[in-house]
Amino acid sequence: MDYTILAPIAGALALVFAGYLAYAVLKENAGSQRMKEISGAVQEGAMAYLNRQYTTIGIFAIVLAIILGVFIGVWVAIGFLVGAVLSAVAGYIGMNISVRANVRTAEAAKSGLDKALSVAFKGGAVTGLAVVGLGLIGISGFYILIANFLTPAGSEMNLAPLIGLGFGASLISLFARVGGGIFTKAADVGADLVGKVEAGIPEDDPRNPAVIADNVGDNVGDCAGMGADLFETYVVTGLAAILLGSFPEIQNYLIANIGLSAAAAENLATYPLLLGAMAIFASIIGVFFVRLGSSKKIMGALYKGLIASTIISIGLFFLATEILLDGNWGIFLSSLVGLGVMASMVVITEYYTGTDHRPVKEVAKSSQTGAGTNIITGIAMGLEATALPVLVIIIGIFLAYQFAGLYGIAIAAMAMLSVTGIIVAVDSYGPITDNAGGIAEMADLPSEVRKITDALDAVGNTTKAVTKGYAIGSAALAALALFAAFKAEIPGGELLDLSIDQPIVLIGLFIGGALPFLFSAFCMQAVGKAAFAIVSEVRRQFKEIPGIMEGKAKPDYGKCVDIVTLAALKQMAAPGILAVIAPLIVGFVLGPAALSGLLLGVIVTGLLLAIHMTSGGAAWDNGKKYIETGNYGGKGSDAHKAAVVGDTVGDPYKDTAGPALNALIKVMNTVSLIFIGLISTYYLLK
Amino acid sequence: MDYTILAPIAGALALVFAGYLAYAVLKENAGSQRMKEISGAVQEGAMAYLNRQYTTIGIFAIVLAIILGVFIGVWVAIGFLVGAVLSAVAGYIGMNISVRANVRTAEAAKSGLDKALSVAFKGGAVTGLAVVGLGLIGISGFYILIANFLTPAGSEMNLAPLIGLGFGASLISLFARVGGGIFTKAADVGADLVGKVEAGIPEDDPRNPAVIADNVGDNVGDCAGMGADLFETYVVTGLAAILLGSFPEIQNYLIANIGLSAAAAENLATYPLLLGAMAIFASIIGVFFVRLGSSKKIMGALYKGLIASTIISIGLFFLATEILLDGNWGIFLSSLVGLGVMASMVVITEYYTGTDHRPVKEVAKSSQTGAGTNIITGIAMGLEATALPVLVIIIGIFLAYQFAGLYGIAIAAMAMLSVTGIIVAVDSYGPITDNAGGIAEMADLPSEVRKITDALDAVGNTTKAVTKGYAIGSAALAALALFAAFKAEIPGGELLDLSIDQPIVLIGLFIGGALPFLFSAFCMQAVGKAAFAIVSEVRRQFKEIPGIMEGKAKPDYGKCVDIVTLAALKQMAAPGILAVIAPLIVGFVLGPAALSGLLLGVIVTGLLLAIHMTSGGAAWDNGKKYIETGNYGGKGSDAHKAAVVGDTVGDPYKDTAGPALNALIKVMNTVSLIFIGLISTYYLLK
Repeated sequence: MDYTILAPIAGALALVFAGYLAYAVLKENAGSQRMKEISGAVQEGAMAYLNRQYTTIGIFAIVLAIILGVFIGVWVAIGFLVGAVLSAVAGYIGMNISVRANVRTAEAAKSGLDKALSVAFKGGAVTGLAVVGLGLIGISGFYILIANFLTPAGSEMNLAPLIGLGFGASLISLFARVGGGIFTKAADVGADLVGKVEAGIPEDDPRNPAVIADNVGDNVGDCAGMGADLFETYVVTGLAAILLGSFPEIQNYLIANIGLSAAAAENLATYPLLLGAMAIFASIIGVFFVRLGSSKKIMGALYKGLIASTIISIGLFFLATEILLDGNWGIFLSSLVGLGVMASMVVITEYYTGTDHRPVKEVAKSSQTGAGTNIITGIAMGLEATALPVLVIIIGIFLAYQFAGLYGIAIAAMAMLSVTGIIVAVDSYGPITDNAGGIAEMADLPSEVRKITDALDAVGNTTKAVTKGYAIGSAALAALALFAAFKAEIPGGELLDLSIDQPIVLIGLFIGGALPFLFSAFCMQAVGKAAFAIVSEVRRQFKEIPGIMEGKAKPDYGKCVDIVTLAALKQMAAPGILAVIAPLIVGFVLGPAALSGLLLGVIVTGLLLAIHMTSGGAAWDNGKKYIETGNYGGKGSDAHKAAVVGDTVGDPYKDTAGPALNALIKVMNTVSLIFIGLISTYYLLK
Repeated sequence: MDYTILAPIAGALALVFAGYLAYAVLKENAGSQRMKEISGAVQEGAMAYLNRQYTTIGIFAIVLAIILGVFIGVWVAIGFLVGAVLSAVAGYIGMNISVRANVRTAEAAKSGLDKALSVAFKGGAVTGLAVVGLGLIGISGFYILIANFLTPAGSEMNLAPLIGLGFGASLISLFARVGGGIFTKAADVGADLVGKVEAGIPEDDPRNPAVIADNVGDNVGDCAGMGADLFETYVVTGLAAILLGSFPEIQNYLIANIGLSAAAAENLATYPLLLGAMAIFASIIGVFFVRLGSSKKIMGALYKGLIASTIISIGLFFLATEILLDGNWGIFLSSLVGLGVMASMVVITEYYTGTDHRPVKEVAKSSQTGAGTNIITGIAMGLEATALPVLVIIIGIFLAYQFAGLYGIAIAAMAMLSVTGIIVAVDSYGPITDNAGGIAEMADLPSEVRKITDALDAVGNTTKAVTKGYAIGSAALAALALFAAFKAEIPGGELLDLSIDQPIVLIGLFIGGALPFLFSAFCMQAVGKAAFAIVSEVRRQFKEIPGIMEGKAKPDYGKCVDIVTLAALKQMAAPGILAVIAPLIVGFVLGPAALSGLLLGVIVTGLLLAIHMTSGGAAWDNGKKYIETGNYGGKGSDAHKAAVVGDTVGDPYKDTAGPALNALIKVMNTVSLIFIGLISTYYLLK
């Protein structure tokens, strides 16, 4: 029997179940007229932004598709467009459900914590399942198409269209991350600077003209952005594992070294698809485990779902290995390495960003001596936070390689990514509750309701941080798998000297190492510029609309959304184009060896900077939260004011530059993978 | 004729000329009783700190020397001790002249800018010439010793003792940078936090108990620290160039590829020594070019000295190449590449840290919307500032390699380092004028005097930043040269697979990449902890000593110096030991391939982080200065308050963590170079 068909079936099942959950969420009460009005404004803004964003990217994508069609191949161009469209669809689904689940969560909070958690988590699960469902359908569908329809009888499969799919997903993910990240933080920082700091009105106050833009930002950044990001990581990891599994050298290596039979080696390419299918089954079951226990711990409820999915996955991975690979231990253990890396990243990120542990407490404590020391401590913690994740990743690489060579690394990455469904569910829960809190505030819901949405939101901060740790760790593993595939795809690559003492490799490493710094600089400056645009607009409205501060006149929310939309789209161009162009320039000018160095340089410093920024940012955010719960003088104290500065700095760190680096790492690898044939030919002709 | 002898002669000449300049400075008037008292306190504190620091390091060094003597060789241990002692001597000389030139500069300012500049620059030149003089005597002396006395007739030279010399210099430089960096910024931040922020008294106010500690810090950090740092870079670069020049493979490569005669190839090992000698002659002449022109531009006067030295060096390098290498163009051009990199680094750093250009202006502008945006912009500028220096360095690597292979890279590094004398002179001028300003303030000198010292000090900020850019760029080139030597020293290294797609190399790269992050985290946290100790002490004195705020009672300055001394020494242990131990652990546990990856990882991220931190820090510092000159509301405005926060954050960035990374990069390379024989033997036996 051909088990490959299980993959699209599992994918479809994920979509059906997501549909069911969406139905369950939508039939919940959407609250009062006022609440509907607010959430309607957020919906409208988010939809308007996404439409414009995807139109802008669409033009760029079509140009690229034509280039690909002409220079690489028509099916690669088709793969590219399908990947891009699926990624956009994942983003749309996530955003659409989030902007509807938010108001229903606020309404549900009137009936208590259980109900509110259930609505918010179901909303998140829709996005999570849509991401993995579309991802697995995309990869397996293309694989089946290539294997059964595009390969003439007797000839070798050409997997290039699958690489096109991955590149399409990468490109959308990059722009979604960068554009969404700039939007969300520009709106957030801008709203806070004029609202909280200048006008002295609380967060989410309806008198602030930027308040809707701020809530829109949560959806387009954390929800659509994260969805596109993990969709892409999922797709490219699957693609890298399939590619490596299809190389004869890899197959022969595994036959010779880990006792795989020649028959089983035939299945190495489809095994990653089966892992994905198995994990979807596990994730769907895991969703039912998310319930408040008697302890009423929200985080505990979410972790129950993750732990259940992981344990069931282990069992199902064993089964998959039995079926396709004669139960080969080396490969099964590699998949466990991936799950181990996932669990370790969650624990480490929780340590560095949770309010119960040293790092956040140190940041809070240092706020007592002012903003300067708060920032110094936050930066120091962010720098320190890189060490353990790197250790975990290198132990993972080491073990997976021992167990099953390069293929083992790809399988570890695939196993880590396979639980994306439940992880995105837990993550998307974050912006939903964040929005629910905002709606409760703006609609003047009673304080008990606000208390519940606050409790949900506080946990949302941690889950967002934890997912970022997961996303970065998986991006690094995925990029390494892609890099291995890249190396194997270089024509005559086995003759290429990639020693680190070769000056040309070294030059590539330096350029690659510097790119994440430059890219982050662009992202940070973009937030500054877009935020400045918002600040000016809010100031203008405060001055020109009479009665706005007394709550008598309604601010022009739409105008703020418009301004930040345009600013974000304008600012995303430079970093986005840098990411796509740099590998091509280095490849064509300096050759494949320099390009290899570049890719590895980007992976190493990209990973480090991304962890530094997301952990540091979350530590600042939660350091402020820690003070707000009454420590060091609580809200309004000098320590709190210092912590607010740290939080502002942390915003573009953790929500713009940091996550965008994930996308950068992978897009550079996919663009190189797709163009390496052309680059090598050109370089040899020169 | 054996031209090698020119090297120790030039070194001795540098010392003699330094002695003459020191005499000229010391015979200047040291000012009033009050001024002498103040400078006496700074002298005493600085001397007490350096004594304790070197005693502490001394114990560690002796233990290491015994290990080296037992496991590697007695002459290596002797080399190590000589390197350590010479480095310490360079630090002592620099510090001793600085603490005497400061008060004389303040006094000279009474007679006008010309006189004050002359005294301050002469003081700096003493340190600069001492550094290169001792450095060249050390390397050439040991080389002559090995060539003529330690090598039995007919056998090959064993240059290991020279590596010992480099390692000794590295170790001292590391601790001097880390300890001095922690001291200077803990004192600075601590003094500011309680003095400026809490008590509202100006900087350098004699009522602040930490004010002497702050001034001591300038000397032990910027002066002794920078001196030890560049002494070390000078020594290890010379050593790497000599090593590479002595390898038969390198000689044969150059004979085959750039038309070097076999006779000239014999001189490749001594050519770097002659370059050093030539540059010393050029630097001594350059000193006389430092004069205020009719434009009265201080920076221009200093640059005149640098430009003159560089141009004269070009001519003398040509001569050196004629004499030893038949005027080989490839090698001569490599030396020009080094000077080109030096000049480019100076220009780029000036752009990113000078008040006339976009980066600093942007930081100042962003201060209008508060500390948060000031920090975001500063970080963004620091991130951006990495791109151009990396570009310059890779172009340098590319060209030098084209001209003369790996040896060309080493020669470029040596040429860049050869002008260290004049560069350190320009740099050491900074802390002298900084102190002169402090003394003028504390001794209540007339405002015209203060105006002159302020003008000198403002330029000092830029020269300090520019030297840091130079130090980092040269450290990167030096480390690459060391790395090439390291690779060649691995027994059977030509068989070792160092491809970047080897997982073990990759693991090394990741570890190496993460170390600068962890190391910086230690440094930043150390400053925080030591500053906290100072803050508590100053608060205690304000509370317990009656009449202190009215200026009636004298604060206990010595106690503050003591506290920060102990704190700095305690805090320097962890990062210092990390730097020495990490390569040994990775080498012995994971082997030479992983160690190679580690070294390269450290070079790449170390360089990037160091530039990020020093440029970002200087941009914050000068952003504040830009506002203080009357922009955006000037001193006391909200923008200024925001800029002060940025300056506080920038302090440990630019003066502790950033410069310490230079030392980190090199000490890891020298420790690996010295232990690689042992590691390889152990690893092969395993």
